Amino acid sequence: MAAPEIPKEQWAQVVEAKGGPVVYKKIPVQTPGPDEVLVNVKYSGVCHTDLHAMMGDWPIAPKLPLVGGHEGAGVVVAKGSLVDDVQIGDHVGIKWLNGSCLACSFCMQADEPLCSHALLSGYTVDGSFQQYAIAKAAHVARIPKDVDLEAVSPVLCAGITVYKGLKESGARPGQWVAIVGAGGGLGSMAVQYAKAMGLHVIGIDSGEEKGESVKSLGATAYVDFTTSKDLVAEVKAATPDGLGPHAVLLLAVSEKPFQQATEYVRSRGTVICIGLPANAYLKAPVFDTVLRMITIKGSYVGNRQDTQEALDFFSRGLVKVPYKTVGLSKLQEVYDLMHQGKIVGRYVVDTSK
Amino acid sequence: MAAPEIPKEQWAQVVEAKGGPVVYKKIPVQTPGPDEVLVNVKYSGVCHTDLHAMMGDWPIAPKLPLVGGHEGAGVVVAKGSLVDDVQIGDHVGIKWLNGSCLACSFCMQADEPLCSHALLSGYTVDGSFQQYAIAKAAHVARIPKDVDLEAVSPVLCAGITVYKGLKESGARPGQWVAIVGAGGGLGSMAVQYAKAMGLHVIGIDSGEEKGESVKSLGATAYVDFTTSKDLVAEVKAATPDGLGPHAVLLLAVSEKPFQQATEYVRSRGTVICIGLPANAYLKAPVFDTVLRMITIKGSYVGNRQDTQEALDFFSRGLVKVPYKTVGLSKLQEVYDLMHQGKIVGRYVVDTSK
Amino acid sequence: MAAPEIPKEQWAQVVEAKGGPVVYKKIPVQTPGPDEVLVNVKYSGVCHTDLHAMMGDWPIAPKLPLVGGHEGAGVVVAKGSLVDDVQIGDHVGIKWLNGSCLACSFCMQADEPLCSHALLSGYTVDGSFQQYAIAKAAHVARIPKDVDLEAVSPVLCAGITVYKGLKESGARPGQWVAIVGAGGGLGSMAVQYAKAMGLHVIGIDSGEEKGESVKSLGATAYVDFTTSKDLVAEVKAATPDGLGPHAVLLLAVSEKPFQQATEYVRSRGTVICIGLPANAYLKAPVFDTVLRMITIKGSYVGNRQDTQEALDFFSRGLVKVPYKTVGLSKLQEVYDLMHQGKIVGRYVVDTSK
Amino acid sequence: MAAPEIPKEQWAQVVEAKGGPVVYKKIPVQTPGPDEVLVNVKYSGVCHTDLHAMMGDWPIAPKLPLVGGHEGAGVVVAKGSLVDDVQIGDHVGIKWLNGSCLACSFCMQADEPLCSHALLSGYTVDGSFQQYAIAKAAHVARIPKDVDLEAVSPVLCAGITVYKGLKESGARPGQWVAIVGAGGGLGSMAVQYAKAMGLHVIGIDSGEEKGESVKSLGATAYVDFTTSKDLVAEVKAATPDGLGPHAVLLLAVSEKPFQQATEYVRSRGTVICIGLPANAYLKAPVFDTVLRMITIKGSYVGNRQDTQEALDFFSRGLVKVPYKTVGLSKLQEVYDLMHQGKIVGRYVVDTSK
Repeated sequence: MAAPEIPKEQWAQVVEAKGGPVVYKKIPVQTPGPDEVLVNVKYSGVCHTDLHAMMGDWPIAPKLPLVGGHEGAGVVVAKGSLVDDVQIGDHVGIKWLNGSCLACSFCMQADEPLCSHALLSGYTVDGSFQQYAIAKAAHVARIPKDVDLEAVSPVLCAGITVYKGLKESGARPGQWVAIVGAGGGLGSMAVQYAKAMGLHVIGIDSGEEKGESVKSLGATAYVDFTTSKDLVAEVKAATPDGLGPHAVLLLAVSEKPFQQATEYVRSRGTVICIGLPANAYLKAPVFDTVLRMITIKGSYVGNRQDTQEALDFFSRGLVKVPYKTVGLSKLQEVYDLMHQGKIVGRYVVDTSK
Repeated sequence: MAAPEIPKEQWAQVVEAKGGPVVYKKIPVQTPGPDEVLVNVKYSGVCHTDLHAMMGDWPIAPKLPLVGGHEGAGVVVAKGSLVDDVQIGDHVGIKWLNGSCLACSFCMQADEPLCSHALLSGYTVDGSFQQYAIAKAAHVARIPKDVDLEAVSPVLCAGITVYKGLKESGARPGQWVAIVGAGGGLGSMAVQYAKAMGLHVIGIDSGEEKGESVKSLGATAYVDFTTSKDLVAEVKAATPDGLGPHAVLLLAVSEKPFQQATEYVRSRGTVICIGLPANAYLKAPVFDTVLRMITIKGSYVGNRQDTQEALDFFSRGLVKVPYKTVGLSKLQEVYDLMHQGKIVGRYVVDTSK
Repeated sequence: MAAPEIPKEQWAQVVEAKGGPVVYKKIPVQTPGPDEVLVNVKYSGVCHTDLHAMMGDWPIAPKLPLVGGHEGAGVVVAKGSLVDDVQIGDHVGIKWLNGSCLACSFCMQADEPLCSHALLSGYTVDGSFQQYAIAKAAHVARIPKDVDLEAVSPVLCAGITVYKGLKESGARPGQWVAIVGAGGGLGSMAVQYAKAMGLHVIGIDSGEEKGESVKSLGATAYVDFTTSKDLVAEVKAATPDGLGPHAVLLLAVSEKPFQQATEYVRSRGTVICIGLPANAYLKAPVFDTVLRMITIKGSYVGNRQDTQEALDFFSRGLVKVPYKTVGLSKLQEVYDLMHQGKIVGRYVVDTSK
Repeated sequence: MAAPEIPKEQWAQVVEAKGGPVVYKKIPVQTPGPDEVLVNVKYSGVCHTDLHAMMGDWPIAPKLPLVGGHEGAGVVVAKGSLVDDVQIGDHVGIKWLNGSCLACSFCMQADEPLCSHALLSGYTVDGSFQQYAIAKAAHVARIPKDVDLEAVSPVLCAGITVYKGLKESGARPGQWVAIVGAGGGLGSMAVQYAKAMGLHVIGIDSGEEKGESVKSLGATAYVDFTTSKDLVAEVKAATPDGLGPHAVLLLAVSEKPFQQATEYVRSRGTVICIGLPANAYLKAPVFDTVLRMITIKGSYVGNRQDTQEALDFFSRGLVKVPYKTVGLSKLQEVYDLMHQGKIVGRYVVDTSK
């Protein structure tokens, strides 16, 4: 295969000051280090985290100037001297974890997301809202060539995250999982992953429309928290023996849903926290948690193995993600909509426009 | 072996009204049902739970009149027609879990303590503060004959509970566990069990005297929370790599210790809640719990297998329990001391006095 | 509900001497003990083990005279004084494990099938080839009332056994399992259970016809061992990365398939042995087993929890079992066919005929 | 810290042709690549594998000319541009796994020893029988500076291997493990690791002298297979309930010990194979393996995490390794003794002599 031509300059969306906006401009293309690859990003999903990175409203400050983006799908166009296992022309994904040390006690145990030297795409290093992005070769997601790069991009963060949460829950095929926020972007993927993993799903969200959607994706039951008179009783009743779901996935945490989860989860069950509302606290009654032996567990993004597994479910057609594509040049408009809470589903940017 | 003579009447301590006191009197000896044994209780440990049962200050009301006690060690003197595996003359223990259905989904999975039909000694059925007590044969603890019935009695609740908590923590030999309340009755057993399980212990409690005691029992480090200027930093520093202990055992929960535990536990670590302060809530910051993938888990009493394992550690001499013995007739005095917070270590009652 | 009328006598098939035949005759109806139920068996599956029991050709001798059968589905018509959790009128299944002590170290850990006092239906106690059979209440399978008793009967041994094997394999949703003997009675259930558990299946068996059947049940790939030139290579090639399946289920063990399984299973993978050919030995090269960290594991029948889980998959319509029903009076004819190796699929006997 | 002076040439023992002998000569010192370190080896243990590498009698051919050795303890004197987490002056160990790709599906799951691109010290790359050796920075064992480099060297292969086997066995503190070959080099370390992990040990080996040694290291029981009249019965009897050990570690496999292990291991127990006799086969009766649910599992060398854990037990003084030190120049004499089966305990070479 002939080496692809790599330009000296490229289009990118750059955050130049805390609070934004993003500036669509030409910037230089970087050269990969010995253990890195240069990826020609074709598409990139847009995540709420990208907005937080621009606003700089999280405890840890992002780099500045910053190219955001951490759901980038593209093609490898150059690689460093030490890179053997990724080839030029391979399809890969740039995800939140751009790199990690691979040698600390967490990396040694396949918990790369907990590495204290982790590089975060679009946060501590430049991400996928540019045409050519750098990533550590050992960390890029391997994407089979028959997978659509546009459709797969939102899986690279959202899909992996919910899949990881389901794995961490320890729920086994045939058991029940309640998904709080089942009708949202993360939630609709979670329902599908759960179904593909042999789980029975109880979707929890607001409104009839979301209920229809959640059921059409495979949920066995749906509970509308806006109309339910006794959410705890209703969720428990949705399981055949009335003892409640074996696991709960909290995609939209606020103190209330959290406390309810520890009430309706089955004794010995697990409540998985994924959502990250600002300054929120988990809270659960000690008496009930101890006597019913409840587990409450935080789940962050997946490791590299989780990534490949989550992609495998997608590439077999078991998970569909609704998205809308716009040119990279329109990124600020997407952020504006996001800010106004007007986004339904997932946005993807096309770096060629 | 000649069948032992069983009297018609016996001495017992009876709670006749909510709030007590206990009345030392003669009551009839019961006859065991087909799946039950009658145990001649020799010694019984006294636990805080027994005081709660007398006071009736927990959410679930105990039976009345009530014979309390759930750390009874004695000898089987009669058995029902279905009982094959326990013989007359066997040494056994009557523990908190007097019986369970053995057929529900929890019992089927060896989680008898979660059985909704569980019988609780000294709470929903009469317990070990009498000379002859009834228990389900399948549930009595099997005590080897060379084990001292007096010394073993406090293990039957306190020992099993801390051992169970350590098992539930998932900490492996060579890893680190912090024990909050290490200098107390439960704590001093927990330190010894942890040590015997190959764990490194960081004891946390108040005062120098407790520190000496905790270290003499095998703790590698001790942190005094009354004098520490930065408890979180100090606990983390006690582990060689500074990342904090792999597990934390909360034997004395209050909101403050709980929150600190989620801060100093290692990423991916587990905080086990055992203590049951009235009306307390677990509380932890969502952001940290998720990003560091912390697990918070309630642990109740052990199941039958945990019981035998905990007893095995004791019978090999790996765990010593300091206790003071008084006659059963003096039980109210023990409660009085307990009420005044004047008890150090564990009290045992001798049913022959 | 009015208590059903229970006759004094009933029809049964009785083995009166080692080697058979079975004699269709009237025998007394038994009365359940305190912890037992009397089940009006409606249908019973016929298993190869029943033939072994009649022939007496296994290491452990069955009782004589013997009523065989251990896949009986029926209705509870009487119960002992201690039985609370099963009601008259409930639908239940009599399975291989008729009872166990519920108190030994295996029973305590939910490994009832390893109990040294286990009662085996149709082997050490009378089984389901009669109209009224006795079983320990704690051990009867709970069957929802909307489940067809005729169709479910073969699940009570064959279904549970393959489901247990899949659980023991540790294979997770999205992983690959090879099923040796996928086209047979056990195999066709195993393929469906594996599929419902989110696994990808490689069926291995002989002939094109079985291949069609295996694929129609959900297998992703099929390898015909009678025509394959390199079975090991072909099985590995059926997995996307060529590293072989994560687990192998050996339903038809002979020395050759066994050795091949350790060769084509993925490194760190697990080979589960279920089939029980007479006098067979497992054999595997030490070098490869150690360097590739292969696990070889025997899996026997399921415990009570496995039973309920396996039934749940069936009752949700995820597993279909082809069977042919004849009257109980025709049992010897079924044995004759079995002896001649002429049985395809599963036979069920109707106790009313 | 001033950079240490690195010579251009160094002493090494070189295998120049299959079958040996080793030639003690001066060879050039190599320069580390970007992800590598150069280690000034101080001491190196000598392992049977080194003899196999020289003789070239294993299925996979080693490189030629070859510098053997894979238990090297020394000091980092140079590092590549990408190496951040190892510093010049750090004490490190060169172990069997010199490097791996860190990106394949096995490496991603912390199973580096199964990486198909693994580099093996003293086999596929030059090892520790030289004064300056190269290793991948991510793979060198981290050795605390207060640990004696001479004493620790044999732990780097033998210690890690037995510790890994014990971990893989799944045996929990308080349970029983039988160690076959307990009196040998690997065995005596295994006994000490098992003890430190809270396990009860039954040592199995030949002769009274080994028995004394095994017991002095902490084994609860010893069975002499040369004098035992019924090894299976004796091993089972050594456990308090007579059901046999929960796990067996096979350090000296031959067909006989292997079959016996599956007979005396407790039902549901695990037999771990570590030893690698030439052309040997595991063999076990199917009937017993299935009905008793026995697991047989191969265990290879440890991964990086296992390495650090095994070193931690050593550095706390819980494991002592008897060894004899000679100059590197005498390596051929050690091989000669090894060939004659005259080695008791472990040899270490001092690279300064």
